[in-house]
Amino acid sequence: MAKGKLFVISGPSGAGKGTICKEIFDQERNIELSVSMTTRQPRQGEIDKVHYHFVTKNDFDQLIEEDGFMEYANVYGNYYGTPRAQVMEWLEQGIDVILEIDVQGALQVQKNYDDGVYIFILPPSLEELKKRIRGRGSETEETMARRLGEALHEIHNIDKYDYRVINEDLDTAIDRVRAIITAEQCKINGEEVDWIVNKYKEDL
Amino acid sequence: MAKGKLFVISGPSGAGKGTICKEIFDQERNIELSVSMTTRQPRQGEIDKVHYHFVTKNDFDQLIEEDGFMEYANVYGNYYGTPRAQVMEWLEQGIDVILEIDVQGALQVQKNYDDGVYIFILPPSLEELKKRIRGRGSETEETMARRLGEALHEIHNIDKYDYRVINEDLDTAIDRVRAIITAEQCKINGEEVDWIVNKYKEDL
Repeated sequence: MAKGKLFVISGPSGAGKGTICKEIFDQERNIELSVSMTTRQPRQGEIDKVHYHFVTKNDFDQLIEEDGFMEYANVYGNYYGTPRAQVMEWLEQGIDVILEIDVQGALQVQKNYDDGVYIFILPPSLEELKKRIRGRGSETEETMARRLGEALHEIHNIDKYDYRVINEDLDTAIDRVRAIITAEQCKINGEEVDWIVNKYKEDL
Repeated sequence: MAKGKLFVISGPSGAGKGTICKEIFDQERNIELSVSMTTRQPRQGEIDKVHYHFVTKNDFDQLIEEDGFMEYANVYGNYYGTPRAQVMEWLEQGIDVILEIDVQGALQVQKNYDDGVYIFILPPSLEELKKRIRGRGSETEETMARRLGEALHEIHNIDKYDYRVINEDLDTAIDRVRAIITAEQCKINGEEVDWIVNKYKEDL
């Protein structure tokens, strides 16, 4: 059986990757969504194992020691990471997996997992990104400037990705990411060619 | 401006490539369909420049001499070919082009045009292909055996293609080919990376 494909969906904070991934996961039956692990406290409404695996710093450290993360990072004092075991198990079973992750994390994953499909979600403009971040509240002028600078720095890494989707209209962006997933599932890989030819040969 | 992409859609006769291409061409606004040239007589209902460019053997020979074909072949005494000029003009203008073509033709095009996206339309089985060919009438047992043998020979070349779509259910097959086209339009090419980065930089 063919292995599953890893779809790494990332982009600047505020570009909309979270919403896109959630919609696709809700609509597609044959794909799994990897849930990150974090040491930060759950926010109101966040459910353990759905939004994150909430763990203690000790548990997180132990998994680091066991080389159990595809990537992890310390973000302003809290740790976030992608546990490797569950993702690998799905892929081995032939199940496709979505990883929603920031750009730094995606580049880390890429170093270890070159077979993945890397999709970059772009905001229509930094002006629009600013509006969206402001809409979430909680940003000062200083943190806003830093976040826009980070976004631009992240966009510089777009050449390491396979696809780019501009999230101007959400439904169009979701359709495009779905199209990328469908197309990748139609790609011919060398391993299956003999299998295909033999399948038809038996018919004759 | 980025060049257009060439989508070469092929597969065994009876797999349904013609119907799929026609549907996609009717639905998509931003794609052109290349019309083949032939020396055979128009069949009832066939319109010049829509179904084929119907030309004399002299005209066809002259275009061969001018190296004006992306591919051509003599099929049971009639010539068929893909004129190069119109396709190249569209691609240069940034317009995507669909080429619906048999497997031998596709492999010829591939030798000259490596940038294309090669999609193989498969029948669900040779048994089903037999039914479809029979449905068109006009086949003897002998020509049927030859056509199935040809189909299997063509399927052997599937490793030279980028994508495969099994045409079991027509609507699903059309959706998949459309998804491949959309995904290819989202692919990141090295040439546009600087352009993307600069576009966002101007926003800051």
